[in-house]
Amino acid sequence: MQIGKQQMKLGAFFMVPGHHVASWRHPESQTDGILSFDIYRKLAETAERGKFDMIFFADGYAVHDRDGAGIEQSVNIRPDPVTLLSALAVVTKRIGLAATASTTYNEPYHLARKFATIDHLSSGRAGWNVVTSSSEAEALNFSKERHLEHGARYNRAEEFVEVVKKLWDSWEDDALLINKETGIFADPTKVHQVDHKDHWFSVKGPLNIARPVQGHPVIIQAGSSESGKDLAAKTAEVIFTAWQTISEAQAFYQDVKGRLKKYGREEHSLKIMPGVFPVIGRTEKEASEKKQQLMELIPEKVGVGLLSALISYDLSEYPIDKPLPELPDIKDINGAKTRFQLVKSLGDREKLTIRQLYQRVAGARGHREIKGTPIQIADQLQEWFEHGAADGFNIMPPYMPGGLDEFVDLVVPELQNRGIFREDYTGTTLREHLGLLRPANIFQKINV
Amino acid sequence: MQIGKQQMKLGAFFMVPGHHVASWRHPESQTDGILSFDIYRKLAETAERGKFDMIFFADGYAVHDRDGAGIEQSVNIRPDPVTLLSALAVVTKRIGLAATASTTYNEPYHLARKFATIDHLSSGRAGWNVVTSSSEAEALNFSKERHLEHGARYNRAEEFVEVVKKLWDSWEDDALLINKETGIFADPTKVHQVDHKDHWFSVKGPLNIARPVQGHPVIIQAGSSESGKDLAAKTAEVIFTAWQTISEAQAFYQDVKGRLKKYGREEHSLKIMPGVFPVIGRTEKEASEKKQQLMELIPEKVGVGLLSALISYDLSEYPIDKPLPELPDIKDINGAKTRFQLVKSLGDREKLTIRQLYQRVAGARGHREIKGTPIQIADQLQEWFEHGAADGFNIMPPYMPGGLDEFVDLVVPELQNRGIFREDYTGTTLREHLGLLRPANIFQKINV
Repeated sequence: MQIGKQQMKLGAFFMVPGHHVASWRHPESQTDGILSFDIYRKLAETAERGKFDMIFFADGYAVHDRDGAGIEQSVNIRPDPVTLLSALAVVTKRIGLAATASTTYNEPYHLARKFATIDHLSSGRAGWNVVTSSSEAEALNFSKERHLEHGARYNRAEEFVEVVKKLWDSWEDDALLINKETGIFADPTKVHQVDHKDHWFSVKGPLNIARPVQGHPVIIQAGSSESGKDLAAKTAEVIFTAWQTISEAQAFYQDVKGRLKKYGREEHSLKIMPGVFPVIGRTEKEASEKKQQLMELIPEKVGVGLLSALISYDLSEYPIDKPLPELPDIKDINGAKTRFQLVKSLGDREKLTIRQLYQRVAGARGHREIKGTPIQIADQLQEWFEHGAADGFNIMPPYMPGGLDEFVDLVVPELQNRGIFREDYTGTTLREHLGLLRPANIFQKINV
Repeated sequence: MQIGKQQMKLGAFFMVPGHHVASWRHPESQTDGILSFDIYRKLAETAERGKFDMIFFADGYAVHDRDGAGIEQSVNIRPDPVTLLSALAVVTKRIGLAATASTTYNEPYHLARKFATIDHLSSGRAGWNVVTSSSEAEALNFSKERHLEHGARYNRAEEFVEVVKKLWDSWEDDALLINKETGIFADPTKVHQVDHKDHWFSVKGPLNIARPVQGHPVIIQAGSSESGKDLAAKTAEVIFTAWQTISEAQAFYQDVKGRLKKYGREEHSLKIMPGVFPVIGRTEKEASEKKQQLMELIPEKVGVGLLSALISYDLSEYPIDKPLPELPDIKDINGAKTRFQLVKSLGDREKLTIRQLYQRVAGARGHREIKGTPIQIADQLQEWFEHGAADGFNIMPPYMPGGLDEFVDLVVPELQNRGIFREDYTGTTLREHLGLLRPANIFQKINV
């Protein structure tokens, strides 16, 4: 291994039993005890054996595609990931633990405390993927008639993160004294009310838990719209994105890294990690057969439903073997705008029918699919990593645990041989794995 | 052990490093790594060795007694207990896992999902202590100017529990088919929208996790006001209470059990478990010395602050060695009314000064203190258990882990010898430990 060579970051994106919409039908996915802890424990142990920077969970607050096919033919149940992270902290030692929690239907005080709790229990391994909730189905589960429009969601998210960071800082690192003799538990001059009062929130504080081990758990974001990019440049330390081509990924990378200066931040303070969906075979032929097998397992209704959800537009009444119909203008989409654009351009560019399009995106759900032998997979990751398109990748195995095992056993050693991925952990916190600085405390007076 | 003899239920009420306000100064409490998982892991292992029905955590969403003394001299930090439970599920096998979560500042969808997650991860061991939040300090952490008044809080709590139960029932027990061959994941006729719409909440559902292993996690409550008793009679399966004398406890027991019929419930479907604060010595003298040692460790300001919080009335300006001043009428107390009444009657009855009163309640915080040798402790528990005052007890060790070790090593064997506590677990779920039936699903059609 070349010393000092820059190394890629890797996230293990857990979705049980896999990222492919038909994963649950795959012979190498586990569906027995699909909500039991054993599945997650084994996946976490595998990811840690593979020296991944972190485990990552997406989330949502509603069943998707609520019609008959969605419930009948796809996986519509999952544990609450924030709750699950804490259990995974117990069965792992070094790997980071990141989960999604929405700023649209939560309270800053609760999320600040939950992620602080996980950071303490795991000795500094927590990460929070900050998202906004954009589906109507979620609004209806939280006593709202409709979901917030795009601008308001991001505005609320920005203020939400600000409040959470203040709460994490409300106890300075050295506030706890715990001196049994003198009876002094904490230094009250180092415990602060946050007195936040703005458009969305008014929060007095302090939080009722000490500052997290990492100062702040790592802040992750995924939005790629204009507001999303700006929020990320201001507050994110990791961005998960979805790009199909290296040129799109490079443009995004340049764009977001370029915005950092405006907020007084260095380039390396933000890691950009596109999602990749690896289909791995010992030969190219085997990889192609695997892909074909997965595509054939997709039920039609599920495929159309998934595509409709991706572009926030109902395609169920259109002929499945014809191209996409005329779609609304992107301005009128109150959903994930970037995802809409991505799918629409892919359909236009390659003149795909609805069926072909859902077969294409159903797997990786808009993320980049990479297919081939372990060497070919490593080549594709290395290319993006070394050409300004990515600081690392969020790995989305098509089926689990099989697909994660293959990546760890076949691809990770290849990346290690090339000197572009760690042989072992050198740090103990997620910040250390990612090469991110511990944030200063806004309440702390600097002694000169 | 007499077969068939009725046995008491025991909760291990975890508060690190103990229930006494000065516990953290006690030589046998652990304060190193006070937020690390190791402390909790060891306590959970001890409680499970002691065959407790469940571990229990209280909670609150603000630091208490925010002035200098509260922060300076008492323990004002704790992990989020719901998050913590999930980690404890991994290191235990049989013991129940219960935590407090407030209906005042949460959303039913989130809590339904979190407790369902813990129930799945623990194979049926979750319990939820349903509370309302009554402190001004909490309101100010959730963008509210003042907290809800007593009636509205209980009204919201009742509807909250109703929504949560509907969400737990939204997937019938046999909704999941997961047939890889036919491609049928779930039976859509067994997955239900809940379509709840009432005063406080409108929630469409279904939940995005399958029905909990226990049907519903066990519902616990603690309120003892009129509204609290009625809510408990309608919805609770366990009540934690605070009584100083057997006659008060018997009256409460009669009262609440008597209300069950109104809601079509049997007497045994609700377990009443008063809190007890055991000070255990190998001799009576040793127990008294331990008590004295704890009392002397209480700093004055902390004692007065604690008493003030208990009665929702600021006593800091009154002379500490005089009796309680004239207090407002109970009608005007917008806090825990029962606790107010309890403390006020104790002060009046025994003509205690503020100092004496805080020394008395600071330990058990209004709960019953029992002191003595293991045999005397067992006698006091047995007396209440056999005379219609309790179905079991929530044990609140003054300091931890020492006080829990003593209870498990010295008192539990004595209770087992008397045949009034289990020698080992016979069931695997918290419901089974407590002798509670698995609830029917409101959406399930009964086949005749």
